[in-house]
Amino acid sequence: EDTVDSFTKKLKDLLSYQNGRPSPVTKTLSCTSVKAMGTLASCPNGMTVTGCSCGFACGSWNVQNDNVCHCLCPVIDWTAARCCKLA
Amino acid sequence: EDTVDSFTKKLKDLLSYQNGRPSPVTKTLSCTSVKAMGTLASCPNGMTVTGCSCGFACGSWNVQNDNVCHCLCPVIDWTAARCCKLA
Amino acid sequence: EDTVDSFTKKLKDLLSYQNGRPSPVTKTLSCTSVKAMGTLASCPNGMTVTGCSCGFACGSWNVQNDNVCHCLCPVIDWTAARCCKLA
Repeated sequence: EDTVDSFTKKLKDLLSYQNGRPSPVTKTLSCTSVKAMGTLASCPNGMTVTGCSCGFACGSWNVQNDNVCHCLCPVIDWTAARCCKLA
Repeated sequence: EDTVDSFTKKLKDLLSYQNGRPSPVTKTLSCTSVKAMGTLASCPNGMTVTGCSCGFACGSWNVQNDNVCHCLCPVIDWTAARCCKLA
Repeated sequence: EDTVDSFTKKLKDLLSYQNGRPSPVTKTLSCTSVKAMGTLASCPNGMTVTGCSCGFACGSWNVQNDNVCHCLCPVIDWTAARCCKLA
């Protein structure tokens, strides 16, 4: 059970901008790309794969553990992961 | 117009974790993959397509109704949808 | 520092549906596709790329400035961007 003070603090945190960054209520979708040599590319911690791109024109891939792109063609030089989170 | 009681209840719901799951305020991006034989793969209810993968190295696809991946190459053995939602 | 009145107003805005649209707290993931001739396709303002699709079966692409799909194969007739935001 919240006390009045802890409850008020949570509300203020919720509604305020802190250190110049939006509060959780005003989250946006934030994405980045990670490219690596070979058939695997891993997203940074806390991000999940939304799509993958592969070298040699290959469009066949799967996602491992929600945060790794795995290109499936026999010959692959590079793999890129498109990685997103709420921020 | 909210009464004090209903207003307070909404606030508590908003700020609290319920049944071990985060409140709406602390939503994260949750994604999964769905693979199917043929040229179509459908996301589960409530999820939307963020990217598609196709068999036979094909990288040409479109999205139908925001929740179905459709691979466009003449010969396709499987189609996979990357599906996301806020959760 | 918020006064009681401004604080209450923020809370009501936060928790209420306004003009028939969900409050920020009940945001969902909203996505659309944009297809263009050539090797580039741009997302609408405020949306970010989650994946790209290319003509001629090509699965090699990168993302420019978080909102433009760029297909990388030597011959490309069309490019499509999958674009998402919170809404």
